[in-house]
Amino acid sequence: MSVTLAVDAMGGDHGLVVTVPASTELLAELPDLHIRLVGNADLINQALAKVSPAIKERITVVHASEVVEMDDPIEVALRRKKDSSMRITAEQVKEGLAQAAISAGNTGALMAISRYVLKTLDGIDRPAIAAMMPNQLGRGTIVLDLGANADCEAVHLLQFAQMADVMARAVDGIANPSIGLLNIGEEVIKGNQVVKEAAELLRNSSLNFYGNVEGNDIFKGTTDIVVCDGFVGNVALKTSEGLAYMISGFIKQEFGRSWLTKLMALVAMPVLMRFKRRVDHRNYNGAALLGLRGLVMKSHGSADKKAFMTALRRAYEGAKNNMVGKVAEAFVVTQIAQATDGQHTGTQS
Amino acid sequence: MSVTLAVDAMGGDHGLVVTVPASTELLAELPDLHIRLVGNADLINQALAKVSPAIKERITVVHASEVVEMDDPIEVALRRKKDSSMRITAEQVKEGLAQAAISAGNTGALMAISRYVLKTLDGIDRPAIAAMMPNQLGRGTIVLDLGANADCEAVHLLQFAQMADVMARAVDGIANPSIGLLNIGEEVIKGNQVVKEAAELLRNSSLNFYGNVEGNDIFKGTTDIVVCDGFVGNVALKTSEGLAYMISGFIKQEFGRSWLTKLMALVAMPVLMRFKRRVDHRNYNGAALLGLRGLVMKSHGSADKKAFMTALRRAYEGAKNNMVGKVAEAFVVTQIAQATDGQHTGTQS
Repeated sequence: MSVTLAVDAMGGDHGLVVTVPASTELLAELPDLHIRLVGNADLINQALAKVSPAIKERITVVHASEVVEMDDPIEVALRRKKDSSMRITAEQVKEGLAQAAISAGNTGALMAISRYVLKTLDGIDRPAIAAMMPNQLGRGTIVLDLGANADCEAVHLLQFAQMADVMARAVDGIANPSIGLLNIGEEVIKGNQVVKEAAELLRNSSLNFYGNVEGNDIFKGTTDIVVCDGFVGNVALKTSEGLAYMISGFIKQEFGRSWLTKLMALVAMPVLMRFKRRVDHRNYNGAALLGLRGLVMKSHGSADKKAFMTALRRAYEGAKNNMVGKVAEAFVVTQIAQATDGQHTGTQS
Repeated sequence: MSVTLAVDAMGGDHGLVVTVPASTELLAELPDLHIRLVGNADLINQALAKVSPAIKERITVVHASEVVEMDDPIEVALRRKKDSSMRITAEQVKEGLAQAAISAGNTGALMAISRYVLKTLDGIDRPAIAAMMPNQLGRGTIVLDLGANADCEAVHLLQFAQMADVMARAVDGIANPSIGLLNIGEEVIKGNQVVKEAAELLRNSSLNFYGNVEGNDIFKGTTDIVVCDGFVGNVALKTSEGLAYMISGFIKQEFGRSWLTKLMALVAMPVLMRFKRRVDHRNYNGAALLGLRGLVMKSHGSADKKAFMTALRRAYEGAKNNMVGKVAEAFVVTQIAQATDGQHTGTQS
């Protein structure tokens, strides 16, 4: 089965300069891939000028006259710019012309537009943002929610776990993904009310629930999935980005201090490069908006070609493995089980 | 004015092996310091056997027959072990025999015991745990709460800011500390209800409120102080610890891979050591329990001598600069202001 991805060619800090080369390079790599490039058709065609006909054959350019800017309020993106490349990209999925949509644009706008265009799956109250964070095991830990839901109830955390469970199986090929609930450890009060209730729900579910985990377990890789509310997840993500940035800045400063230290850097270069590859955040780019009637992948706004290709590849895997269909199915099963449980309780009382 | 610190000599993963040498070394450094070492008197005296009389003169050994273990439930620590070194350490402050208490023991137990023995200051609902996290500016960012309060209301976040403001002035000598409220950024919903209300309270306070900050701002050093609830703060702290541990592990692995890479490490050693010093968490050890009628400093359980000395030094600075008195004063002023405001509103209506 071939896969068609819809790509918001205008989104992100770099737009076409990144999205077009990333798309054509992935097309060269994956022969069953088609891409619909959405945006200003003239500019896209210019950017495609030097691309070989064999690749171009599997590209469709879809015109969109507007662009959602990184700082556009959600209202503007959703209500005013009805012909934005972001919106037309989501509509490709809605209309069955593509199996997944990818954008490096403004997260808030992308979530709002995707929700409006695609709607949520039956049984899901809140879509969530899920991404991979690197871990010591050299794999990644799936963490969600990363910012879509600042206030969550326990049942939302359960649903996040259910969706991530399907994603881990479908996109990352993990057989029976383990799930950790992000909590605070040895400190005075172990967790807030919502987390305590969520733990109870997770224990009673059919998921492979490991129990509570702490912030450092994300990087230890204690569980395949870590579930938390969007406020906590966003803080964990941004804090990690900030620390990684500080550390890499320190390394650069120290090696750049004098001609002697620069010489040392030259000597140590093979090791430094290997190290850099291991912590390269570009290998983890691509956050899935889970819970929608269609697959939407958000790339980091500042993504370069390599990073954007990672997001495209994740979308391709999700589409190829029918991730959304499986999430929908999981929730139908859950709802039937709940309904049956309800009847059961009914007869008992 | 001389300063007396009460040290829980038995606390932490290493106990006497760390607490006694750290204490004697700091005594050698600071001629106006006295230390009351609390714990098993025989063992402490053994550990002091080779210490010079000039240093010993400024040490008092206080016997305590019990020890709070790292995994003791709070109930056990508080109700059963009434003669624990942790509790007797806190009582030294209560009885005016020391100006600050330091322990590397179990955080939950230390908070519970300190709260029970010392009580909270007038006008403070919830004590908080505040510590320094390193930042790009080479200074530290004070972050609180780090785990004492998993569920917070807006007014608690305001109080945390007020307490940290005094601490930054008294311990770290910052003239007009700027305060950031930890929030989530560009994502769909900007903050939860509590954070929105807290921002309003902070804007209307006399504090130097910068506005919202994100996780990465902790390491950028955007503000001197970052305020959040204990759940979020604990996750940010543990996530950072986990990432730093992973990165340093990767560096070690890459340089240790073969004789060639080990040689490269040897060449680059001066740079690697400078880098290590800059990110050395031991320079940031010591979390203050703020809001109590006495200064209590919590050291990381795994602290070595250098790290424990940092915590002792922070306690010394806090004691010398009358931090607790200043926090108390700030809250009296706040309460009078509030009372006056109340009257004022009263006359208007």
